[in-house]
Amino acid sequence: MSARDVRWYGWGYSDTTYSLDHRPTAWPYLREKLGLTDDQHAPVVSLDSIQLRPSRLDETTLTQLRQIVGAEAVATDDRVRIAHSLGKSYRDLIHLRAGRIPNPTDAVIFPGYEDEIMQVLALATAQRLAVIPFGGGTSVVGGVEPRSERPTLTLSLARLNKVIAVEAMSQTVTAEAGIVGPDLERALNERGFMLGHYPQSFEFSTVGGWVATRGAGQASTQYGKIEDMVVGLRIATPSGVIETRNVPASSIGPSLLQLLVGSEGTYGVITRATLRLTPLPKFHQERGLLFHDFHAGVEAVRAIMQSGLTPAIARLSDEDETRMSFRLRESRRGWARVREQIGLALLARAGRSFERGAVLILRFEGNDECALHECSHALSICKAQGAFDLGAGPARNWHRDRFHTPYLRDVLLDHGIVVDTLETAAEWDNVETLHRKLNAAVVEAIAATGSKALVLTHLSHVYRDGASLYVTFLAKSAPHGELEQWQRIKDAATDCIMRHGGALSHHHGVGYEHARWIEQADSEAGVNALRAVKRALDPQSVMNPAKLFDGA
Amino acid sequence: MSARDVRWYGWGYSDTTYSLDHRPTAWPYLREKLGLTDDQHAPVVSLDSIQLRPSRLDETTLTQLRQIVGAEAVATDDRVRIAHSLGKSYRDLIHLRAGRIPNPTDAVIFPGYEDEIMQVLALATAQRLAVIPFGGGTSVVGGVEPRSERPTLTLSLARLNKVIAVEAMSQTVTAEAGIVGPDLERALNERGFMLGHYPQSFEFSTVGGWVATRGAGQASTQYGKIEDMVVGLRIATPSGVIETRNVPASSIGPSLLQLLVGSEGTYGVITRATLRLTPLPKFHQERGLLFHDFHAGVEAVRAIMQSGLTPAIARLSDEDETRMSFRLRESRRGWARVREQIGLALLARAGRSFERGAVLILRFEGNDECALHECSHALSICKAQGAFDLGAGPARNWHRDRFHTPYLRDVLLDHGIVVDTLETAAEWDNVETLHRKLNAAVVEAIAATGSKALVLTHLSHVYRDGASLYVTFLAKSAPHGELEQWQRIKDAATDCIMRHGGALSHHHGVGYEHARWIEQADSEAGVNALRAVKRALDPQSVMNPAKLFDGA
Repeated sequence: MSARDVRWYGWGYSDTTYSLDHRPTAWPYLREKLGLTDDQHAPVVSLDSIQLRPSRLDETTLTQLRQIVGAEAVATDDRVRIAHSLGKSYRDLIHLRAGRIPNPTDAVIFPGYEDEIMQVLALATAQRLAVIPFGGGTSVVGGVEPRSERPTLTLSLARLNKVIAVEAMSQTVTAEAGIVGPDLERALNERGFMLGHYPQSFEFSTVGGWVATRGAGQASTQYGKIEDMVVGLRIATPSGVIETRNVPASSIGPSLLQLLVGSEGTYGVITRATLRLTPLPKFHQERGLLFHDFHAGVEAVRAIMQSGLTPAIARLSDEDETRMSFRLRESRRGWARVREQIGLALLARAGRSFERGAVLILRFEGNDECALHECSHALSICKAQGAFDLGAGPARNWHRDRFHTPYLRDVLLDHGIVVDTLETAAEWDNVETLHRKLNAAVVEAIAATGSKALVLTHLSHVYRDGASLYVTFLAKSAPHGELEQWQRIKDAATDCIMRHGGALSHHHGVGYEHARWIEQADSEAGVNALRAVKRALDPQSVMNPAKLFDGA
Repeated sequence: MSARDVRWYGWGYSDTTYSLDHRPTAWPYLREKLGLTDDQHAPVVSLDSIQLRPSRLDETTLTQLRQIVGAEAVATDDRVRIAHSLGKSYRDLIHLRAGRIPNPTDAVIFPGYEDEIMQVLALATAQRLAVIPFGGGTSVVGGVEPRSERPTLTLSLARLNKVIAVEAMSQTVTAEAGIVGPDLERALNERGFMLGHYPQSFEFSTVGGWVATRGAGQASTQYGKIEDMVVGLRIATPSGVIETRNVPASSIGPSLLQLLVGSEGTYGVITRATLRLTPLPKFHQERGLLFHDFHAGVEAVRAIMQSGLTPAIARLSDEDETRMSFRLRESRRGWARVREQIGLALLARAGRSFERGAVLILRFEGNDECALHECSHALSICKAQGAFDLGAGPARNWHRDRFHTPYLRDVLLDHGIVVDTLETAAEWDNVETLHRKLNAAVVEAIAATGSKALVLTHLSHVYRDGASLYVTFLAKSAPHGELEQWQRIKDAATDCIMRHGGALSHHHGVGYEHARWIEQADSEAGVNALRAVKRALDPQSVMNPAKLFDGA
């Protein structure tokens, strides 16, 4: 991983921010919509001021751990424990900014080998400790937070960060679980390949985390979610190491592989995975389109997918998100400003505006010229739905900033704004209903907390049979009551998703924050089946307790 | 299902055979290769002569069953029990032809509703009976054969055969588990859709069977295996009904859906499934190609897949299968004969022959003209590997006969030939090695039984990272020792697959015949995890006992 400092209380690198200074229309819009007053400011405590509960591990246990992984690979100092006791959810950041670490981990272990992990698991099983696997720590559902009463070891995969083999003939890579996105991608690019998995957390998240979370990258429409990319994996469980076979497909009963993918550290520690690759694309084409409304955009995206076309990116913002993105635009100077003015004038002449309408970003890429043909076909589908062609600019801008948006959250938190994202997925016949209902549920919940709401939605990760819905909500925070306020919004939104047939999560996972709904999602008998696997693989319930089906 | 009579001791409809009479070069080739003598003939006993063990169910139990499903839906007569006591594997057919039903089912139940199934499961649980779900009965791995000591109910899904809903907007169908391929396809075609799942058993197998087996159809390269098509399912287990949510994708922990797909009746009875559809393709193009050898063909197919092209069919026969197919050709008359002669002459002039070389059948289809462009691109890849273009004929012939080949097995069995198929899958870097090793293992095992061998392989169901290998082996049978002979071949082949990193099965499943190897495939800890699910869903081990992980 990079040697750059990371922001301990928020997202990303300390040297990077998402400044609103050069976005002159952003604050006025937010102030008006959320009823903000100028002086609202939410401070962050100093890291040094945090009083952490001392480690509850005794010297004997620490000595045993040091014998297993080496003295330098066992950390009990406050800084390291703080950095490994919470993830990156809204709840986590509010805690961190206030200097509250509700249940700090007792030690962070940095094993270098799977065998060391097995020894740590054996020790933990014997002493009934909890073990939480930790990759990039970017969970937004409480996946890495200690939630049980047991003394807890956080097991960082940071040292298991090697590419084991790139198999050029089969176009697969086998990598250790702790490798982060950019390091893996660099190794693949050097050999002419890419993975095609670009979650917003890409710069920090790891192969093991992607697989354990059953996550999706921004280009999953073409390259699939991580579960589609996984050929096989190794997982170290208290009952032994399981290695699935690397085969392209099989019919040997229930899928053991798909039982381990998404297990979120509750069955064991994923130590390596083999993933399918794609040759770096030779052709690409990208475009932004403005529809009269979200409905027309949904119709177009559905038609694109159901015509058998495969965009890498198909990201449709609803009217509220389109407007907000427009208000967030940077001020331009010189020629860029002239070009922008001309563009807006042309748009106005066509009777269009970003103030009403829905923007779709499309990107097609591939090794065959069909990618270009597919893009043309998609554009004709969009035009049949009344779309205005915005050229490549919006898609290029989005691509440039695709890992940058999470930084905005910290800026908003600095101003005491409640801001979080929700995501789900639904079949096409349900997408627009769910969008409406979810929007209404969030607005109503925020209103019930006495605040005004901004609710922005985009549809991305699209499929032939449906799409994911990604919702960002913003509200002025109730002073000192923001977590309770947030929880009421979260509950209302999740209840609404469950009531209206959406997925409990499309790519963020379950962790602690979604665990309460898992029996609604998978049925009691279904969850009991998954719990039975837990008992078989982890009889003492050492692995990431109180998460997933164990946290219901 | 059709009212046509089916062959009780073999494959398919009684009025259909695969005659070798008009294939003048077939027998001479087989005789030479297998060392057959003209007089070898293996008779089939008459159905009426079979002495079946009487049903072991007492009158009380039968009365209870009749109360649940109705008197006419409980069958204990010999004919119905014989038809539901074995599947369609080589072993099954040899037993049937000899009139041996090793462990006949005790009653066949035809429930009409899921609720009736739940009542049958409750009764079976209380009385410790075994319950075997039965769809089309086409398992070739012993999936529907009673293998436990317990009195057994075979639960036929034949009456749960309705299409529940075709959801045109989401392009999905929800159907009851007992519907057979042609009935489902007809209902879909009427609405402009197709499923794209065409296993060789298509005419007889069912939605429930496909899902329970984790099967693949011949066009899986484009449309996916059944696990890729399943959006959701309902399964009736002794611990309750589980219904998964219909969503395009999710990240809610381990995949409950993919844990139930492939469960082969050991967790419960799949009662309905929702499957993704495809609009009927507007464009298609097909082609046969002759490569100098299998290796060149493998290189071409791999390059096609890794260029991002998506054939519906890419089926490459090795040299032995190419030769055998040529020897199996029908004799032609008139113009057809002239055309054939001209074709062979042109081939000879190009220095090619079906006696040495490997035939690839390609088919591209879709709703976008890209299907045609993709076919051209694929042809240029093939030509770069030295392929000779055979035109559309071979692909058309294959397509016409695609559900017909299983009938040939009965003809060969009539002549006392041991004939069976094996299948596996491997990553590309392993495909050719596994092909060679597997071939050698089968030839050697057959030689060890004192017979000469014909071993024919094709590569189909291809992926970016690998392909399935489908092997047909033929040998002269050792009189009265054919099952032992077959088992030795089967063991040698499966051991070889396990040793060399292949999938235990790519699309036939595990059942009883592959169960012995499942711990090698999934590891002991992995299989124990799947067994734990079994205990949670079926605590009395009622469901299809002695199969899958329970038969190891």
